[in-house]
Amino acid sequence: MSSIYHGQLTVSIFGQSHAPAIGVTVDGLPAGEAVDLEELQAFLSRRAPGTGAWSTTRKEADRPEFLSGLDKGRTCGAPLAAVIRNTNTRSKDYENLRDIPRPGHADFTAQVKYGGFQDVAGGGHFSGRLTAPLCIAGGICKQILARRGIYVGAHIAAIGGIPDRDYDPVDLSREDLLAPAGKPFPVLDDGAGERMQAAIARAKEELDSLGGIIQCGVIGLPVGLGDPMLDGMENRIARLIFAIPAVKGVDFGAGFAAAALRGSQNNDPFYWDGDTVKTRTNHAGGILGGITNGMPLVFRAAVKPTPSIARPQQSVSLSRREDTILEIHGRHDPCIVPRAVPCVEAAAAIAVYDALLEQQERSRQP
Amino acid sequence: MSSIYHGQLTVSIFGQSHAPAIGVTVDGLPAGEAVDLEELQAFLSRRAPGTGAWSTTRKEADRPEFLSGLDKGRTCGAPLAAVIRNTNTRSKDYENLRDIPRPGHADFTAQVKYGGFQDVAGGGHFSGRLTAPLCIAGGICKQILARRGIYVGAHIAAIGGIPDRDYDPVDLSREDLLAPAGKPFPVLDDGAGERMQAAIARAKEELDSLGGIIQCGVIGLPVGLGDPMLDGMENRIARLIFAIPAVKGVDFGAGFAAAALRGSQNNDPFYWDGDTVKTRTNHAGGILGGITNGMPLVFRAAVKPTPSIARPQQSVSLSRREDTILEIHGRHDPCIVPRAVPCVEAAAAIAVYDALLEQQERSRQP
Amino acid sequence: MSSIYHGQLTVSIFGQSHAPAIGVTVDGLPAGEAVDLEELQAFLSRRAPGTGAWSTTRKEADRPEFLSGLDKGRTCGAPLAAVIRNTNTRSKDYENLRDIPRPGHADFTAQVKYGGFQDVAGGGHFSGRLTAPLCIAGGICKQILARRGIYVGAHIAAIGGIPDRDYDPVDLSREDLLAPAGKPFPVLDDGAGERMQAAIARAKEELDSLGGIIQCGVIGLPVGLGDPMLDGMENRIARLIFAIPAVKGVDFGAGFAAAALRGSQNNDPFYWDGDTVKTRTNHAGGILGGITNGMPLVFRAAVKPTPSIARPQQSVSLSRREDTILEIHGRHDPCIVPRAVPCVEAAAAIAVYDALLEQQERSRQP
Amino acid sequence: MSSIYHGQLTVSIFGQSHAPAIGVTVDGLPAGEAVDLEELQAFLSRRAPGTGAWSTTRKEADRPEFLSGLDKGRTCGAPLAAVIRNTNTRSKDYENLRDIPRPGHADFTAQVKYGGFQDVAGGGHFSGRLTAPLCIAGGICKQILARRGIYVGAHIAAIGGIPDRDYDPVDLSREDLLAPAGKPFPVLDDGAGERMQAAIARAKEELDSLGGIIQCGVIGLPVGLGDPMLDGMENRIARLIFAIPAVKGVDFGAGFAAAALRGSQNNDPFYWDGDTVKTRTNHAGGILGGITNGMPLVFRAAVKPTPSIARPQQSVSLSRREDTILEIHGRHDPCIVPRAVPCVEAAAAIAVYDALLEQQERSRQP
Repeated sequence: MSSIYHGQLTVSIFGQSHAPAIGVTVDGLPAGEAVDLEELQAFLSRRAPGTGAWSTTRKEADRPEFLSGLDKGRTCGAPLAAVIRNTNTRSKDYENLRDIPRPGHADFTAQVKYGGFQDVAGGGHFSGRLTAPLCIAGGICKQILARRGIYVGAHIAAIGGIPDRDYDPVDLSREDLLAPAGKPFPVLDDGAGERMQAAIARAKEELDSLGGIIQCGVIGLPVGLGDPMLDGMENRIARLIFAIPAVKGVDFGAGFAAAALRGSQNNDPFYWDGDTVKTRTNHAGGILGGITNGMPLVFRAAVKPTPSIARPQQSVSLSRREDTILEIHGRHDPCIVPRAVPCVEAAAAIAVYDALLEQQERSRQP
Repeated sequence: MSSIYHGQLTVSIFGQSHAPAIGVTVDGLPAGEAVDLEELQAFLSRRAPGTGAWSTTRKEADRPEFLSGLDKGRTCGAPLAAVIRNTNTRSKDYENLRDIPRPGHADFTAQVKYGGFQDVAGGGHFSGRLTAPLCIAGGICKQILARRGIYVGAHIAAIGGIPDRDYDPVDLSREDLLAPAGKPFPVLDDGAGERMQAAIARAKEELDSLGGIIQCGVIGLPVGLGDPMLDGMENRIARLIFAIPAVKGVDFGAGFAAAALRGSQNNDPFYWDGDTVKTRTNHAGGILGGITNGMPLVFRAAVKPTPSIARPQQSVSLSRREDTILEIHGRHDPCIVPRAVPCVEAAAAIAVYDALLEQQERSRQP
Repeated sequence: MSSIYHGQLTVSIFGQSHAPAIGVTVDGLPAGEAVDLEELQAFLSRRAPGTGAWSTTRKEADRPEFLSGLDKGRTCGAPLAAVIRNTNTRSKDYENLRDIPRPGHADFTAQVKYGGFQDVAGGGHFSGRLTAPLCIAGGICKQILARRGIYVGAHIAAIGGIPDRDYDPVDLSREDLLAPAGKPFPVLDDGAGERMQAAIARAKEELDSLGGIIQCGVIGLPVGLGDPMLDGMENRIARLIFAIPAVKGVDFGAGFAAAALRGSQNNDPFYWDGDTVKTRTNHAGGILGGITNGMPLVFRAAVKPTPSIARPQQSVSLSRREDTILEIHGRHDPCIVPRAVPCVEAAAAIAVYDALLEQQERSRQP
Repeated sequence: MSSIYHGQLTVSIFGQSHAPAIGVTVDGLPAGEAVDLEELQAFLSRRAPGTGAWSTTRKEADRPEFLSGLDKGRTCGAPLAAVIRNTNTRSKDYENLRDIPRPGHADFTAQVKYGGFQDVAGGGHFSGRLTAPLCIAGGICKQILARRGIYVGAHIAAIGGIPDRDYDPVDLSREDLLAPAGKPFPVLDDGAGERMQAAIARAKEELDSLGGIIQCGVIGLPVGLGDPMLDGMENRIARLIFAIPAVKGVDFGAGFAAAALRGSQNNDPFYWDGDTVKTRTNHAGGILGGITNGMPLVFRAAVKPTPSIARPQQSVSLSRREDTILEIHGRHDPCIVPRAVPCVEAAAAIAVYDALLEQQERSRQP
C-alpha cells in the first residue's frame, strides 16, 4: 500500500508531479450529497501556488475534472474520481537528481526502494503537488460536514519561530476557525502574519527556507466519534496528517506541553453548561480515550522548512560513489506552510467525516 | 474497527481491565520464527506494575498463555493468539464511574458512545492494561527484528520537565539504545533518573501525577522501508503509538523543533561513509519521504500525566445532571511513563517489522 | 492474512485442532446487543460431533468461554473474544502426516508453504474444527439479525446425489427455513433424509465418504444491502462460505442452471404486491447488481466428500522421495455435510449482518 | 466499500457507463515491471464490442490513457492510474429506467439503495462496461505472471447448454490454455463454437438472450499460494469473479460435481513425477486447504443470460405504483459470454498475482 486511506471511505491518491495527471478516488460517499464545485475550487485555490513571495512560480490552475461519482451535481453512490492535469511541467530540471539526491527529499530513499525505476521528475509521487488530490477529497468532506454543523479550520500557528495568536481551545469561535481561510496569509493576527512574511522574504533572499506549525480546529462535533486504541481520533488524524510531505510531528490539545504538566493541571474538569457536559479547560484537545468529547478538537502539525533551497549543499553521486556539491535550480516555495494550511484542513475533514460515517451506525441502540 | 492494526501483520487486541482476560491475535507471521518465551516474559515485566514508587500497587503477573500459532516454540503459520488472565480485579471500585466520569479518562465519551453498555470496571477496554497484549505482539516482533540485526529501544526523555541525556541521533549506539531496558528506571543518565523519581515521589505525596516524553530509536534498518503518503513510517508508527492511552503527541527527528529551523540547518547533508550513504546530521529521524534512509530512526512520544489522581476533582453526575466533586480511590501510578517505555518499543517494533515484511517483497526486481 | 474477515465487523479466527484452544475475536459489534448464551450453545451443538452414524467419534463439548466484549450479557462495544479449549486431543495419530500427505487434505500444501513448521496435529489450522469459532461469530450475528426480523436457515439439499425437497425461492416460508435446524438430520423431507443417511452408512461400511450440497436462505432482508462489483452480496457470501474447508463451489439463485436458460426465462418480472415490489420468479436469488432486492436470498454450497477415508490410498513420502501407500487411522466423519449446515448459516449471517451495518449508514439521505 | 480489491495490490475501479470516463487505480505494483501497451490493447480488444453477431453495436475503442504509475514503459512504484473516456454515449435511451426498472438489472436495487441519486445512464456503475478497467488491471498482472512462467487462460465451456471440449485438468497444455484468446470466438473446439454462435443468432432473432459457462485455467503456479480459511485461493478468486456482473456461480476443480462423488473417487492420489509431487487426478482444481498444490488451477464461472432483451417484459412503475410493460431499446449483446472470457482471465490474474506477491514474502525462512 502507500497512498490509500481505508476506512468507511477509501481515499486513493495517485499521480506524479510531471505525469499526465494527478488525482483521487473516493469510495464510500453516501449518495445524494451535493458538491459545490465553485466552493471546492476556492478551497483548492488556497493550496495552489499563489502570488505571495513565499510561493513557487510554477503556475497550475489545479482545476479538477470529475470523471465519475457525480450525477447532476450530487454524489451518485458510485466511486468518485477526479483528476488534475499536469500542464506546466519542466522535466529537464530534474534528470540529474536520480544520481545526486537532494538533502531532505525522498530522492535517495526512492532510488533505493524502487531500484531506479521511480519517476524523478518534480519529485514524482513524493511531490507536494500530491496534496492537491488530498484537498479534493478533503474539500468535499468539509462541505458535507459543514451541512451537519461541523466546521474545520486551520491557521499558521508559527513560522520560523514567530507565533500567531492562539486559539481559545475551550470556546473556539467560528470566526477564529474560518477567518484565516479568507485571507491571503492565513493567520489570526495579521500583524504576526506580516512579521512571518518578512521572515520568509528574508530567508528567500538568503537562498534559504522556513518551516512552521499549523494549528487546526474542528467545532460542532458530536460526542462519540472515534474508537479506543488503534482507531482513536488521534490515530486517524495522525495517519492522514503525515500524508502531507514535510510534516514531522503532530500533537493534540496540550500535546507535548502536557508532558510537563501535573495531572491536576492537565485534567479538564467537567461541568454542566445547560444541557451539555463541557470541560472548563481543553488540554485533551477534544479527545478522551480516542473519542470526541464534544469540545473543540484541536491539534498542531509541525512542518519542516522546505528542503529545496538554492544554496549549494553537500550530497553524493550514487553512480560515481563520491561526495559532491549539489545546486538545486527550479521553482520552489521558500516556505510551504501557508499552502499546507488547507491540506491540514483536508486531512482533518477526511478523518472526521470518516469517523462520523462509522459512528452513526455503531451508536444506534438495539 | 477499533483495536486492530491491519498491514502485512494483523494485530488484534481484545479484553477489558476486569474481564476474564485480555489478549491479542497476530495473523501473518511467517512460519518458523522462534519465540523465546523467557525473553518475552522479561520484556513484559518491564511494563508490569513494579516495585517503584511510581507504580500502582495492583499486582498482576502478566504471564501470557499462548493458545495457538506456536508449535515446538516456533511460529507455525497459523494465527498466533495469546491471553493474559485478569486475576486481581476489584470491580467494586468502579461502579459509580458510570455516572460520574473521571476527568481525563474515557468514562464520559464511552458512556455516550456505547449508550451505557460499556464495561466500566477498571476502565474497561480503555485501560492502560490493554498495552500488555500490545507488548506481547511487539515483543515477538522485537525478537524477530533483532535476529535480522534491527534493534529497537527507548528511554524516558523527560518526566515533569526534567530531561534525560539525549540520544546521538547520527551515531546512536547499541548501548544507548538497549541499556535503559536493563534498568529499573529506564534512562540514559541515572542522575537524571533519580531527579525524575524524586519529582514523582513529590507529586505522589501531593496526590498528583506527572507526565513525560519517551524517546525511541531503531538502528540497523535497511534503506527502503515504508511508503509515500499514507503508509510512510511516520504514519505507521504514529498510528500504533497513539494506541497507547495517554500519548498526545508524536514527532520524528527534529520534529516540532524543525519548525523553527531554516532549510539550510534542517537538511541533512549526504556523504559516503565507505560503501554506505549516510547523512551528517539526522534531523529527518531516519525517514525521508516516509521511507527509511538507513540512519537511526528516532521519534518521541508525549505522555500526559496520569489522569487518575487522589485529589478531589470537579466532575458531573450524568444522571442527576448536576456538577459534583469526584474523589478517585483505587490503585494508580503517579507516573506511567516508566511503564510506557516498553509499550513504545512494542508499537515501534510492530510498525517496523510490518514494513520489513512488506518491503522484502516490493523491492524485488523483475 | 488468512483467517480474517474485514468489513464493518472484523472476524478473526485462530487456533489449531490440537493447540490449547481455538477461538475468535469480533471487532465492531455495536454495544448493547444481547447475546443469549443458551441459544448460542444450541447452535454450536448442531455443528459439534453428534451421535449420528455420519459423525466422528471425537467428543468435544465445544463450550465457548467469553474472554471479553460482553458485560451483563450484552455486547459492551469492546472487541468480543471467545475461546473453546481443545480437550480431547490425540496428537500421536498425526505425526507421520508431515512426511506422507493425505490426499485431499492440506498436508502437502502446508508442508511446502510453511516449510515444515506447520502444526500437523489434527490438521492444525486447516481442521474443520476451526469452523466452531466461525459458528460463534455467526451465531451471534444470527441472534442480532433475528431481532431485526431477518432469518437465516439452511438444509442439506443433496448428499451423494440424493436430493432433498427444494425451497420455494419466491415465497420461502419461515418454517422451511428454520425447521431443519431442529432436526438431528437437517433436511426438509425426512424421507429423503433417511435415504441420505442410508447412503452415508453404506459409504462408511465401504470405508468411503460422501459429499453433498447445502442450500441456504435468508428472509426478511431489506432492499439495498451489498454493493456493486467487489462487495456485492455474492462476493461477500462467497468469501465467507469458502472459509469452510471442503466447500468447492457456490452459486446464487438459479446459479449454474441459469447458464442454460434464456433471458426471457431467467429474468424475474417485477410486480407490485400491495406496497411492496416483488418478483414473480427468483432466479436472481434475491440479489441484483450485488444488492439485495427484498426477495429471499438463496444460495448453494458444494461440499466435497470427506477426504479422510479408511481405505489405503496412494501418496508419497516427501522425505524419501518415493511413492507409498497411506492408511489413515483416527476418527473421521464419513460425511461432514450435516455438521456443515450451521457453518453455512454462520457464514451467511456474518455476511448479511456486516452488510446491514454498512447499509444503515450509507442509505441515509442528507 | 464497493469497487475495491484490497490485498497486496489495491485495485480500485471507478466510473459509470455514461460518465466522462471509467478507470482503475492499482496500488502496490512493484517498481520496474514492464507494461507492454500493445499487448494490453490486444487483451482489452477481446473484451471490447466486436463484429460478431453476439455483440452490442455500441462501438468504443476502449483505449486506456495512463495517467500515472508508469515511467519509460515500466511501473515506477507510484500508484498506477488509467482511464478510458466514454465517447459513444446515448443517455437519452435510459431516462425512464429510473421509474421502470429492467428485470434482471440493478435499476431497482440501485434506486432504493441510493435514494434515486444514482446515475442510471447505461446502467451507471453497474454496467458491464466497468469490466474494462478490471481488464486493464488484470491484463497488467497477466503480463507480469507470464514473465514468471505463470499463464492464465479461459474458454467458453458452454453457451445455452452447448458444451465446448473440456480441459485436461491434470495436464492442461499451454495451447489449450492460450489458443482460445487468439480466436474471434474463444473455444477449444471450433465446431462447438459454431453451434454456440448459431444458438446465439437464433436467440437474437427471437429477441432473446443466452448465458453460459466460462472455464479458466492457470498453469505454472508454484506450490504455496493462498491461505487457509478466509484468504484461500477459492475465496480470493470468487471475490474477484463475482465482480463481473452476470456471474451467479463459481466452482473449483470438480466443484458441484464433487458433491456427488465418493471420497475414494474425488481424492487426488499423490505421486512423484521426477522431482515433483503431482496428483493423478485433479478434482481439487489445484487447490488444497485454500493453497495451490502445483497442479493446474481450474475453475468455472456461471454467466446468466443477458437481462436486456428486446421482448416486452413485466415490470413496475415505481412512481405510479402500478404494474406495467417495459420494452427495452438500445444496443445489447444477445450473449455476453464471449466478451466475459477475458474478464474472467483478468480477475484470475489479479487474484493469482496478489497471492504471489504475498507468498514470496511469507514463505521465506528465518
